[in-house]
This record gives sequence, structure tokens and C-alpha cells, in this order.
Amino acid sequence: MSAIDYNKATSITFKQFEAIVGAGNVSTDKEQLEKYGQDETEDLIFLADVVVKPQTVEQVSAIAKICNDNKIPLTTRGAGTGLSGAALPLKGGVLLSMEKFNKILKIDERNLQAMVEPGVINYTFQEEVKKLGLFYPPDPASWGSCSLGGNIAHSSGGPKAVKYGTTRDYVLNLEVVLANGDIMWTGANTLKYSTGYNLTHLMVGSEGTLGIVTKIVFKLIPLPKYDLLMLVPFKEAEDACRAVGQVFRAGITPSAMEFMERDAIDWSIKYAGEVNFEIKPEWQALLLIEVDGNNQEVLMQDCEVISAIMQEHNSDEILFADSAEQKNALWKIRRKVGEAVKSNSIYKEEDTVVPRAELPALLKGVKDIGRKYGFSSVCYGHAGDGNLHVNIIKGDLSDDVWNNDLPKGIKEIFELCKTLRGTISGEHGIGLVQKEYLDIVFPKHQLELMRNIKKVFDPNYILNPGKIFD
Amino acid sequence: MSAIDYNKATSITFKQFEAIVGAGNVSTDKEQLEKYGQDETEDLIFLADVVVKPQTVEQVSAIAKICNDNKIPLTTRGAGTGLSGAALPLKGGVLLSMEKFNKILKIDERNLQAMVEPGVINYTFQEEVKKLGLFYPPDPASWGSCSLGGNIAHSSGGPKAVKYGTTRDYVLNLEVVLANGDIMWTGANTLKYSTGYNLTHLMVGSEGTLGIVTKIVFKLIPLPKYDLLMLVPFKEAEDACRAVGQVFRAGITPSAMEFMERDAIDWSIKYAGEVNFEIKPEWQALLLIEVDGNNQEVLMQDCEVISAIMQEHNSDEILFADSAEQKNALWKIRRKVGEAVKSNSIYKEEDTVVPRAELPALLKGVKDIGRKYGFSSVCYGHAGDGNLHVNIIKGDLSDDVWNNDLPKGIKEIFELCKTLRGTISGEHGIGLVQKEYLDIVFPKHQLELMRNIKKVFDPNYILNPGKIFD
Repeated sequence: MSAIDYNKATSITFKQFEAIVGAGNVSTDKEQLEKYGQDETEDLIFLADVVVKPQTVEQVSAIAKICNDNKIPLTTRGAGTGLSGAALPLKGGVLLSMEKFNKILKIDERNLQAMVEPGVINYTFQEEVKKLGLFYPPDPASWGSCSLGGNIAHSSGGPKAVKYGTTRDYVLNLEVVLANGDIMWTGANTLKYSTGYNLTHLMVGSEGTLGIVTKIVFKLIPLPKYDLLMLVPFKEAEDACRAVGQVFRAGITPSAMEFMERDAIDWSIKYAGEVNFEIKPEWQALLLIEVDGNNQEVLMQDCEVISAIMQEHNSDEILFADSAEQKNALWKIRRKVGEAVKSNSIYKEEDTVVPRAELPALLKGVKDIGRKYGFSSVCYGHAGDGNLHVNIIKGDLSDDVWNNDLPKGIKEIFELCKTLRGTISGEHGIGLVQKEYLDIVFPKHQLELMRNIKKVFDPNYILNPGKIFD
Repeated sequence: MSAIDYNKATSITFKQFEAIVGAGNVSTDKEQLEKYGQDETEDLIFLADVVVKPQTVEQVSAIAKICNDNKIPLTTRGAGTGLSGAALPLKGGVLLSMEKFNKILKIDERNLQAMVEPGVINYTFQEEVKKLGLFYPPDPASWGSCSLGGNIAHSSGGPKAVKYGTTRDYVLNLEVVLANGDIMWTGANTLKYSTGYNLTHLMVGSEGTLGIVTKIVFKLIPLPKYDLLMLVPFKEAEDACRAVGQVFRAGITPSAMEFMERDAIDWSIKYAGEVNFEIKPEWQALLLIEVDGNNQEVLMQDCEVISAIMQEHNSDEILFADSAEQKNALWKIRRKVGEAVKSNSIYKEEDTVVPRAELPALLKGVKDIGRKYGFSSVCYGHAGDGNLHVNIIKGDLSDDVWNNDLPKGIKEIFELCKTLRGTISGEHGIGLVQKEYLDIVFPKHQLELMRNIKKVFDPNYILNPGKIFD
């Protein structure tokens, strides 16, 4: 795709935007541009020319049309919790904040569906449906602050994905504004769908490069009544990884199966506060395993089977959470690992994913590659999905090694993922920071195919330019 | 899209195909062309110029390249059990039969995955994984004869979709030959995926118009140990439909929730043989409900809850299948309904789908529209998914009414589906016979978007031309 000569948003277009959304919802203040120029990706910052906050689909459509007619870059942003830089306004232009699309429009108890706006916070939605005995499972670590629209942009997962799937599995239908301002519903509000190309599933994971989601119809499921949580320590991290696969093979699908390396636990406890149990010095890794369902006795039986498998893989003494409080404490350690690691050092986070049973090979490979290039890493993630977050720590590394050698190491990690029949992102997306590695997993003709799909949806290349590919 | 001036496959290209796949795998015999010119869609027949049976991805690639270079239509066919005419070689040219791609390449017990060729029969695959305690749930009524590649073409469902999802939910990765002969893997063998556009899910349901699937990586799950089956009779069909939604609302997700109208039952029994229980004259509809899981006691409790809900909706006495034999007999009635209806009269089958709780409204609407246009219909299908198969019966209708009034009635049925926020096909696809109705559910600009996606994958419009859209 040849370079586009973008126009910048000008004072004329600012006036047009103000006429559409009201003066209070258009800003060119430096402070605002800086606030909306960052997300949770490293320390990156890019400034848009203007921040616009629409409230209706018609407003989004009118803004898109102006941007399309004038070749102004248009980057859509949810809550800014992304980890691949997908919401950063790399090429300037308009930053479209969807924060005012914050309404749960309908929870349809008859059909176990909900219609929501994309700016609704994941946790808020979860809590609302829970009140009705319903369940929306996708639960990224950032659920308290991430938006459902952002979750769709990356098909976000979370601990519960291992049993319940990722965001993709709950999206039935999307209202989308296209680059030229056209509005469409991608599909139907049905559990089955075989009516032309599946635009819904194409939109999910496309990181705001194909359209702007303005309404979402989600599938809901009945809320399981009970859950049990256990913490399983290991002296060898690879033993923990090996134990994971055996649980599924025994016919049990836990509702979470999380892995944390020693460093991740220590840093998280230091960051998030003390825990009321001992973390023994010899433990090198922990598994956090949850089972859920409607029958407590069955769950106890499942836990017994899981315990036996863990012991076969040399686990140390297993801790069963015996109160809601203790469950929350354990989950807090897991959920805060990412933030903790990031508060500790300059870092790069990779979102590697492989078939579940290849996890020990991936973990070993990451450590070997680290030794080769001289970097250390803190690993944790969704072991049941084979999804390992590798946080590479700058620590005492020189800028030279960090800037020049590290990318070679990352490339080797991603090549290993490919060899293990996995890929370079399971739930964070490609965005800005992984795009240089995309040719590791796709041949040239396949990247070209994706670029041509982009062109169909966005011929002027205004939507989130510079993301996924150049 | 402008009309394409296709070349026909000539004796020169026949020789080229023979050089690729061997002379025994290329045929222009009239008998062969007729055999491969039909599927299970009404009495339609279209003749290709040549039937070619490749065995390797390289052969498929070479054939596609010849067709692309010479603008020869190329229609891929699985086992020919389709109900929308998607596998019919409408424009002549090459009929590519995938029947020799019939190997299960690997069942990976460590990762709960399998790699298979697209010509493998659904039931064969199910049985093979079952031997290892694993489960591949999608089970179309034609599972004994349909191919997994055909299932992917339409994202086929089946009774178990209500709990376990459709084919789409089990496809992790696809090896695909593109129109120009290029080969790609659409994604990775992972449970999570956020790496560029989701080509895997775009390919599923695209009915052979975007590429030719040559290998499939499926996700598998542990096989549930037990199932219980109950048959619930109703004097009012709409009572049966209303009862369906309440079961899910009570927190139970059955592994099947099938609906059959009285006529469907009678015709199926007449066609498939006697049953060893009485079908009372006053029964107007039956629900066939299955629950499955690993704990028999829990399943019994679920059945009690379901029974109570059924009784609240005026069900008559419920029959519990008490042996594998009786279960098979009940399932046989359900699975044979389609064939039975078709053996009885000229018919048209519609694959309507709506949100689950709208099923009573859909059923009532179908009957009202039938009365208005003078046609009768036999309805059955996957009530738990809101997926109602409407078999419109020609019976004594004149050809004039059948050919001229019926399409108006079908249009009204589909418009009703749209009003109920459903769509015109849940699992059979658009293919040839529904394409004229596609503009009921999509505005013009959205159809244009789909056509442009087609163009990206297949610029010479050789792959399954005339399907989904003209």
C-alpha cells in the first residue's frame, strides 16, 4: 500500500466536528491530547490533532464521512487499557473517544442476550447481568477499567476463556460505522448464522481498522452457582506446565487455569499487598485453578481429581481458598501481576500463544533465548489456553542491548511460537508494537490479502492507520 | 460485478488435469457429470464440463491455477448433502470433488485437537475421536454422509449446537488454496487468536466462494460420560415453543432441544419405521430434550427441573428413554424428518432462525403466511437455537401458485425473520436457492462490501460462481 498523504484536522474541520457533537465534546487542549495519546503500552505517546467524543451512531457516521472526504486519520479509542498500542493516534488526525457510548441498552432475559454500547466497562456489564442470574464470561485482567468495544477490537480473553471462550464467542451482532459513514449491522441476533460472509467475526479482532463499532449484541449464559479455587505450588515451573494438559485429558475443564512464575508472584505481592499465607522460598511457580458449576459436590470431586494430577506432577501442598475473601486475595495477586511487573522496570510484554501441551517447550525456549541475548523475563498467563505473557525486563540492560539485541530475541521467541504451531498474539492484538513481527507468521501473499481486505472496508486508509500493518 | 465471460474446460485442459491427478481421476462421462451435478437441494441439477478428484494440496493448487489463468469456473464439492445448492456447478467448468481427501491425519490427545482432510465424513470422525474419550459435537442430521469440509462451507449445526455451538466454534485453523493457487494456513492451532484479521472465521460459512479448504485443525473436548433423553408431547405447538426458553432461564443448557410438529412426526415414522410407543392423536408437537454430563445424578435433577417446566406449559405425559435402543429410535425419528418430508412431496425447505424466545412468533407467522398464500408447511428443527426448518409442501398446489405466489410467501417469512432480529439461514447457507432473498436482510452497500471481499480472494470470479450472490 503506498504512503497516504493525509490532511490534518484543521480549524475548519474542528468547527464541523463541534457542529456535530457540541463544542464541549471537541478538544485540542494539549493536556487532553496527551491524555488520549497514551494507553497501557509501554511509555508510548502519540498526539492527535483533535479529540472528539460522539454520543450517537449518527454523529460517528457524520465524523467518519468528514474524515473520509478529507483523508484525515481517524483512530477509535475505548478505555485506553490496550497493550499493543492499537488505540494510539499514530498518524495524528482525529482521536474518536467512545467513552460516552456507555449505556447498557437492554438485557434480554427471554433470549439470554444483551445490547450494549461499546464504551461500557467490562466489569460494570458483568455485574449488571449477574444481578439477573446471567453470565458474560470474558474477563481480561483489566476488567475493572477496559471497555467492551476494546475487548471486541482484540477479541480479548481472560482467565475464564479456558472454559468459556474469548470475546469472539459472545458477539452475536455488531452495529458498525464504515469509513465512508455507511452504517450496517454485521449479522443477526441469533445463535446460528449461515447467511453470507461472517462480517461479525471479521470485525472482531480487527483493532478498529475496518470500522467503528457503535452497538454490540452479546450472548449471555446462565450464571454458574458455585466455584472453588485452589492454589498449587511447584518447585519446577515446567512441572506446573506439564500438569495443565493432564487435567483436560481427565475430562475436566476448569473455569480458570492460571500460571505464575516465582518473580511474578513476588512482584505482585509487593505491589498489591500482603497475603495471609506463606509463599515458600522453594516454590518456583504457582497454578491458580478454578472450577465452577451448579453442583458443589461435583466440583469437590473435580478438585480431588485435579489434586491427584497435581501431586503426580510434584506439586507441593495445595491451598484451597476457604472464603470469598481468600478467593479475592488470590485473584488479586494474579490480576495485578501485569501492573506490578510494569511498575518495576522498563519492559516489553509479549502475548505468546501455543497449543496447550506445548507450554513447557515455550517456557523453556523463552528462558533459553533470554540467556542467549542476556535478558530476563517474568512469565505468567492463561496456561489452560497455552497463552503465556512474557514480560521482558530491562533492568540493568544497556540501551544498546535493549534497542538492538532484544528485537532479535523477540523474533526468536515468535519463531518458536510458530514452530510450535502457535502465534504471536492470543489476546492483546498486533496494534503498533507487534506489526514488525507479523511476517514471521504470515507469508507475503497472505499479508497482501489482509491489506486488500482493509482496502475494501477503508479505501482511503483513514481508520486507525499504521496498525496491524503499515 | 459485471458478467464474466467464462471459458469452458476444453480437451486441452482435461489433459492438463489428467497430468496433475492421473487419468482415473478426471471424468467427462455423462453419468459422472449427472451424479456430481446434484446434491440434496430439491431436484436441481447442473452439469460441469469435467469432474476432477484431487488427492493432495499441490494438485488442488495446480488445478486452481489453471482455472484461474483460463477463467474456468471451479466448484468444490464435499459429499453432496447440501440443502442450498452450494455445491452445484451452476456455470459448468470444473467440479472439484474432495472425496479423496478422506484421511484423519492426526488426533492429538495432548492438545485435544485433530487435523483432518475435508472429505472425511462427520460421523466417521465423531466415532474415531470417541474411541479416545474425546468429542467433536457438531452433528448435522446428515452426519452419516456429510463431509467435514461441507460442514465448514456452511458452519453446519445440528442438535448439539444448542449446548456446544456450530462447526465454526471447533475450527482452529484451515489450510486453504486460493483462487490463484496460493496456499495459506488461515491462523494458528491455538484456542486464542488475536493476530491480524480472522481469516479462519471468514472462510467458515463462505460456501467455497473464497478458497478451497484442504486441511482442517479442529478443537476437541472431553466426551461427556452420560446423557438422558426425554420426549415431551404437547397439544399446542406454541406451548412447546414457549417452554423452550424457560429451560435456559432455569440455568440448564440441554445438549439437544429439538422441536417437531405433528406432521413431521407422522411422516418420519411412516418413512423410518414403527416406534414402540403410542403417538396420541391429540399431540400436535413434540420436544426431544437431551442433557449430558459427567454426573448421572445431576442429570436426573436437571430432568426433574425440565419436567416441571414442561408441565407448567401444558405438556402431556413425558417419555424417558430407558435404553440405548430407545434413544436411537427417538433420534432416528428426528433425524429422518427431513428425508421423510422430501420423499412425500415436492417441497421447498427454509432454514429460518430467530432469537430463541421469538420461536412461537415465528411459528405462528409461518402458519399465517401459509394460510394467506394457500400453502401448508411442516416445521421442525433446533428449538433451543431458534432455528426452525420450514418445509413448504407442494401437495395439490398448482404450478402457477407454486412458481409465482410461493416466492412472495417465502419473502414474507424471511421479512418476519428479520423483524424478529433473526435471519434467513442458520445452518444451510445461501448457496443458489436463497440468494434472491439476501437483500431482505442486507442493505445494498453491505452486499457490495461482501462482493468486494469476494473480489479480493477471487478476482476472476472462478470459485463457485453464482453462489451467495450473482
